[in-house]
Amino acid sequence: MNATNARLTDSHQIRVYYEDTDAGGIVYYANYLKFFERARTEWLRKLNIKQSFFLEQNTGFVVRHVEMDNIASAKLDDLLTVNSKISEIKRASLVFTQQITNEQQLVLCIAKVRVAYVNLLQAKPCAIPKVILGALKGVS
Amino acid sequence: MNATNARLTDSHQIRVYYEDTDAGGIVYYANYLKFFERARTEWLRKLNIKQSFFLEQNTGFVVRHVEMDNIASAKLDDLLTVNSKISEIKRASLVFTQQITNEQQLVLCIAKVRVAYVNLLQAKPCAIPKVILGALKGVS
Amino acid sequence: MNATNARLTDSHQIRVYYEDTDAGGIVYYANYLKFFERARTEWLRKLNIKQSFFLEQNTGFVVRHVEMDNIASAKLDDLLTVNSKISEIKRASLVFTQQITNEQQLVLCIAKVRVAYVNLLQAKPCAIPKVILGALKGVS
Amino acid sequence: MNATNARLTDSHQIRVYYEDTDAGGIVYYANYLKFFERARTEWLRKLNIKQSFFLEQNTGFVVRHVEMDNIASAKLDDLLTVNSKISEIKRASLVFTQQITNEQQLVLCIAKVRVAYVNLLQAKPCAIPKVILGALKGVS
Repeated sequence: MNATNARLTDSHQIRVYYEDTDAGGIVYYANYLKFFERARTEWLRKLNIKQSFFLEQNTGFVVRHVEMDNIASAKLDDLLTVNSKISEIKRASLVFTQQITNEQQLVLCIAKVRVAYVNLLQAKPCAIPKVILGALKGVS
Repeated sequence: MNATNARLTDSHQIRVYYEDTDAGGIVYYANYLKFFERARTEWLRKLNIKQSFFLEQNTGFVVRHVEMDNIASAKLDDLLTVNSKISEIKRASLVFTQQITNEQQLVLCIAKVRVAYVNLLQAKPCAIPKVILGALKGVS
Repeated sequence: MNATNARLTDSHQIRVYYEDTDAGGIVYYANYLKFFERARTEWLRKLNIKQSFFLEQNTGFVVRHVEMDNIASAKLDDLLTVNSKISEIKRASLVFTQQITNEQQLVLCIAKVRVAYVNLLQAKPCAIPKVILGALKGVS
Repeated sequence: MNATNARLTDSHQIRVYYEDTDAGGIVYYANYLKFFERARTEWLRKLNIKQSFFLEQNTGFVVRHVEMDNIASAKLDDLLTVNSKISEIKRASLVFTQQITNEQQLVLCIAKVRVAYVNLLQAKPCAIPKVILGALKGVS
């Protein structure tokens, strides 16, 4: 299997609440990172992977690199769609390419996010558990 | 010592940033609870008490009850003062009475917050460490 | 109609993400206020009321009083249910009684929240629009 | 003046509170974007520029692009230093290069942030007010 060619994609919807907005009348920029993470989490959940299970073993995904383009702004009550794709699978890290659109199909935000699997107590990278890799590759 | 009579008070200043506001142009209501907690934390720090020290032993303060009156709204760039008082000291819990004012001395928000000391792994109340109680009583 | 007797209730589900938790391993206490507000917002949405419509007219609900009991803690991945009830309807304010339970039906958090309808530019209370009151009373 | 050569730098300190951390025991990744924005805001404030003044005219800075490297994780109680530099000044946008270190001088996080000046009502870029550009160039 060639992971980079695989159709490793998912879609998740998010409603914009007051908590997500700021006094400029738009979604506060840091909150897009929350939206991207919710979408990654829900994707794993669909594959039957619960992050709390790994947290109990003091491991988890930690974001190592983010590139985000904020093209247009989301507003209160918008229903956003986060489309996610895995563009790289390595032994200890994954790269997600994610995009947020609103109901008018306008692309608001694009991000590339590298997450590393780490031992949280030692703050050291470790191999992504096979059950996760298997589930991800199984969807291709 | 009678804790309720003691001058157990502290003051802490907080600047309102974009992250704290919402599309209504005012500070989002949940964020006042963050401000109150920052003020409690900084107070403990002045007494040489670091919450991270206790967290490493899997203990810490958990909020059990909040009563909050939101009288007027804080806005972007406001410099807020959080005045805090301990109104009750028990073996395993403390009650803080806290108040937020802006630069015009207008009272924006008043809260009464009961925090319990808990073992975070067992989610069970436990006695507040003597070093904390001693430091708090020492300021009276 | 007697609003306090009416079956003015709604239910909304929320998943706990990393963003909601803190280093104590539990949901950070201020975030329950976000959950309660999401539930109120979704309830209004079901009644065809979009808060963004009123925001464009510079009006909206502002929280004036909160009483919250935190009985037990939510954790990462928990699926929470927020049950909401309107216990008082006045000309310019509403009181919501809300409760959060986890999947084991354990009650984690109970709150009573008074929201006032305000002109956001003048920071003054004003009458709740009839379309909102009508929709709320219509569900009884 | 050649802005890219100018010593356009500032430094700001931030304490890590419970609200900033997550169940992994570290600062939640989106919160670094809050820290970077606080540092930019405080820098402008030192130059006598209040964002609320511009917000009243419905203008403000909006982030358009972020590149962030998360090298190591901040923890509860850490005292962070955000060092900021302006690496590019254009008519309607600025590029900040920002870096967060802890008390052990360990670099935790590096970011490049492009902010555009926009009319918030029209969501359109507009020229950065001369008072801001002048203040920024004056520090070189």
